[in-house]
Amino acid sequence: MRTSQLLLTTTRETSSEAQVISHQLMLRAGLIRQLASGIYTWLPLGLRVLHKVCDIIRQEMDHIGAQELLMPMVQPGELWQASNRWDRYGDQLLKFKDRRKHDFCLGPTHEEVITDLARNELRSYRQLPQVYYQIQTKFRDELRPRFGVMRGREFLMKDAYSFHLTQDSLDATYQAMFGAYERIFTRLGLTFRAVEADSGAIGGSHSHEFQVLADSGEDQIMYSDTGSYAANVETATASATFTNDDQHGTVQEVATPEVQSVLEVATHLKLSLHQIVKTLIVKGVKPNTWVAIVLRGDHELNEIKLQKLNLTADPLQLAPLELLPQLIGCHAGSIGPIGLDLPLIIDLEAAKMTNFVCGANKDGFHLRHVSWPKELLNQASVVDIRNVKEGDQAPDGGTIKMARGIEVGHIFKLGTKYSKALNAVVTDPSGRAQELIMGCYGIGVSRTVAAAIEQHHDERGIVWPLAMAPYQVVLIPMHLAKSNRVRELAEQLYSDLVQHGVEVLFEDRDERAGVLFADADLWGIPYRIVIAESKIDQNVVELKERGSSAEAALIPINEITNFIVAKVRQTNQN
Amino acid sequence: MRTSQLLLTTTRETSSEAQVISHQLMLRAGLIRQLASGIYTWLPLGLRVLHKVCDIIRQEMDHIGAQELLMPMVQPGELWQASNRWDRYGDQLLKFKDRRKHDFCLGPTHEEVITDLARNELRSYRQLPQVYYQIQTKFRDELRPRFGVMRGREFLMKDAYSFHLTQDSLDATYQAMFGAYERIFTRLGLTFRAVEADSGAIGGSHSHEFQVLADSGEDQIMYSDTGSYAANVETATASATFTNDDQHGTVQEVATPEVQSVLEVATHLKLSLHQIVKTLIVKGVKPNTWVAIVLRGDHELNEIKLQKLNLTADPLQLAPLELLPQLIGCHAGSIGPIGLDLPLIIDLEAAKMTNFVCGANKDGFHLRHVSWPKELLNQASVVDIRNVKEGDQAPDGGTIKMARGIEVGHIFKLGTKYSKALNAVVTDPSGRAQELIMGCYGIGVSRTVAAAIEQHHDERGIVWPLAMAPYQVVLIPMHLAKSNRVRELAEQLYSDLVQHGVEVLFEDRDERAGVLFADADLWGIPYRIVIAESKIDQNVVELKERGSSAEAALIPINEITNFIVAKVRQTNQN
Repeated sequence: MRTSQLLLTTTRETSSEAQVISHQLMLRAGLIRQLASGIYTWLPLGLRVLHKVCDIIRQEMDHIGAQELLMPMVQPGELWQASNRWDRYGDQLLKFKDRRKHDFCLGPTHEEVITDLARNELRSYRQLPQVYYQIQTKFRDELRPRFGVMRGREFLMKDAYSFHLTQDSLDATYQAMFGAYERIFTRLGLTFRAVEADSGAIGGSHSHEFQVLADSGEDQIMYSDTGSYAANVETATASATFTNDDQHGTVQEVATPEVQSVLEVATHLKLSLHQIVKTLIVKGVKPNTWVAIVLRGDHELNEIKLQKLNLTADPLQLAPLELLPQLIGCHAGSIGPIGLDLPLIIDLEAAKMTNFVCGANKDGFHLRHVSWPKELLNQASVVDIRNVKEGDQAPDGGTIKMARGIEVGHIFKLGTKYSKALNAVVTDPSGRAQELIMGCYGIGVSRTVAAAIEQHHDERGIVWPLAMAPYQVVLIPMHLAKSNRVRELAEQLYSDLVQHGVEVLFEDRDERAGVLFADADLWGIPYRIVIAESKIDQNVVELKERGSSAEAALIPINEITNFIVAKVRQTNQN
Repeated sequence: MRTSQLLLTTTRETSSEAQVISHQLMLRAGLIRQLASGIYTWLPLGLRVLHKVCDIIRQEMDHIGAQELLMPMVQPGELWQASNRWDRYGDQLLKFKDRRKHDFCLGPTHEEVITDLARNELRSYRQLPQVYYQIQTKFRDELRPRFGVMRGREFLMKDAYSFHLTQDSLDATYQAMFGAYERIFTRLGLTFRAVEADSGAIGGSHSHEFQVLADSGEDQIMYSDTGSYAANVETATASATFTNDDQHGTVQEVATPEVQSVLEVATHLKLSLHQIVKTLIVKGVKPNTWVAIVLRGDHELNEIKLQKLNLTADPLQLAPLELLPQLIGCHAGSIGPIGLDLPLIIDLEAAKMTNFVCGANKDGFHLRHVSWPKELLNQASVVDIRNVKEGDQAPDGGTIKMARGIEVGHIFKLGTKYSKALNAVVTDPSGRAQELIMGCYGIGVSRTVAAAIEQHHDERGIVWPLAMAPYQVVLIPMHLAKSNRVRELAEQLYSDLVQHGVEVLFEDRDERAGVLFADADLWGIPYRIVIAESKIDQNVVELKERGSSAEAALIPINEITNFIVAKVRQTNQN
């Protein structure tokens, strides 16, 4: 493609709407344009990247025997009512009525539709297992769309669904899908990590997220430095370690005047945070009931773990501060679990503590040298409700480290949640009807493009992995209009490369070299070939690899095509 | 692909919902399934066909320098308000509000969005011309969706838009697009005709439809038997021919008791329909005004031509029958243009008549031997408002023939309708702002699949053109489970063909040969290869071409791969 013919509107300015680097660079390089909040048009350069991601996904899905189909984006409300998600899915589900006043929604996901298809098409266990996938537009009416296509409202997703008679069969497909996802993100040239994850609103028993590692990622990944353990912080488990350097003694009330937070208690008593417990009061499940949550001072509450226990109101609600004196007899800063007349939920690690400090349930006082009364632990719910942190001991024995990631894929063992709701059954070998066991497997296609940029960029722009680049080569002839020799060689090289299947941007715009170089860097084209009079004299062209800090290399003119073709083939064969 | 692993649910029964053969066959062959009225899931076999159509479209769009992009399906209402189509587009435009109560719609077409993009990205005439296209899902909330994906609500469309400084530039792109469309439908293996057409709700001055010829088509195409003229009946023009065999005489009132229709008048007076004029009374533009429409007795009113004149109420409304005596002085059967105190719209061909019969505006009487008073013709609007019919003389001198067609493509010269409404301007060479001149170009991708089946089927099922077939070959080994020789040859041949890039369905289902043959025919796979013990003895396989009435041929085993590969390559190179 000649740049003079391409819709190119690069900008030097960063839009004020773009908070993350991928969004900024996608706007500046002319990959996307916003049409409405969270709704984007993919411009030619961006769409090429999106298609490359789709192509690799299709190849790997086909490779494991998944069959591509295409389900509608407009879905009948009655299926969502049948699955009980019409109301429960929340405001992200965009609902409307058609001209005949029937309920419809824009599909944020397709479990209902595929289960409806399966219950009509699948009759016998002999047809199983079946794995279907599609690459289709989804719509989720996010309250605060942000970060460009990273969290848009309309976006492209690959979603796959599998149907099984047995759990073993589901496990096998789940493993095959896991492998396909590893190959997809590896082939795309991304550094990623598969982590155990929470199943969230989709439901199901078991799930893994595929996280592209990037400092700007919204997700915290907790992984073991020695072993294979890795999990999203939402679900990660680990043992905390600590040494208690406070001398043992008998329980003692100490004055802690003007002290509010656990940090202030620690400072005041010259102790570490991990020698103190903190106590939060939250709403119980029944109206007007309250529950106390106890954590070690240096630990954070994990709301997802807590809410799964169904011991507290959903959503989580802290007790109003002004209510505490009446409820407990003191203000927030002095609450403690000992002698508190409320049901207790004690984090596993807090329950292991001895010789600790806690609030005395009396304003301005704390208790010191406390150990848990056995009876109190027996009556309490002792559970894992904290966020794992760096330095903890991982289940595999290693030490927990933290990395940030962007979730680009998520695979779930769904079980029978949807087949039960929609009565999707097949006859088993004994002729009895059995609910289909399901898995579902998503990749955020648009988001993968943004995540790749978060991971692969520098101060000059995008640095595409070769497999995702919109064009593999940018060919920049210097003074094209003035030099016949430059023009002839450029045309020859362009034609050679294109004939060998290489995707080339031919820079034929009448712009200063600085502008052309800056745009090539901004677009992140992996190989830049510069053709200049002076170099033709030496029978070479200049080749610069976008990602490399090395100087441009001089490559003999008769070798350049083979060099590039070999690089491109290598990537395609990965 | 092995059929045992494919989602296959062919049925012998025809669904009662399916009124046309393509819909019936798409359901029976398992290409699509209905999710809701006019909303379909594409099953694996159907999606492969859809993708083949997309691939060929992409190649031909890229070939003429069109750039692919992807615009959102969810569009902001404000753009449609700016173009004045928010209300005017009618109930097919599905509108809704998002969670923040902003107006949105599902895009039935993308003129507004692309014009908005162009006004932001295009600044100077130097960037022109630009041609963009996308393949994107559209939604039109049809009142009566029917014929499966032929007139669905959610469907796939290729839409392209071009931007120009001059009319000449638009003309050149229009011609290039015309050529691309011809290549697309030719490569798909379809018999089609490009015809002049009405621009309808999209607007613009000039348009062509691409019609796939099929007896079941909803559109009437009028074409010249000798020349190049072809037009949709909505817009076709031609001269009527006739001989008047009634003897001349002076105007004479004749009794026509009990006579209502023009046919009854003709029978009563022993004349031909073309010797009589018929007169209709319809509402005028202003309230409580009426207009008389005059046509030759054998001609039909063309409402589209009439409405374009803006001389009558929109939509067209016939005067209520009970009002006529008061308005005209007689009932419907006796109205005529002579002495009628209403504005007259006389069809061109009716105005050419002499010595004709018309109503006398007096119940039970007609006038005979009438010729038009010059003064009356001068005052009337004499215009083309009739449907052309077979036997008329085409503008190129040939004789008009009629064919039925299915509209699969439509190209328009839009002019500045949208750029004016949305203020999309560029600076021209003199530095002045000029509105962009636009063209737009659509292909109904889903509908093309259905149209292909309407044109290519027989009593046993679909007969795909090779370029559209979901698989090019179906390989049927007889008694696969019982014969090692059959199995080995089948596996070898399957692997050979796949390695050569041929798309093969391997029939490994344990079914009777009759079932396998019937399914292969229903799916319309172009080449059927049967492998049987008895034929292996002769070193041959049996090859049957789906479309051909010839007997199956016996092809030497060592030649079959090359034979098929050559056929497939030939199609891909078209």
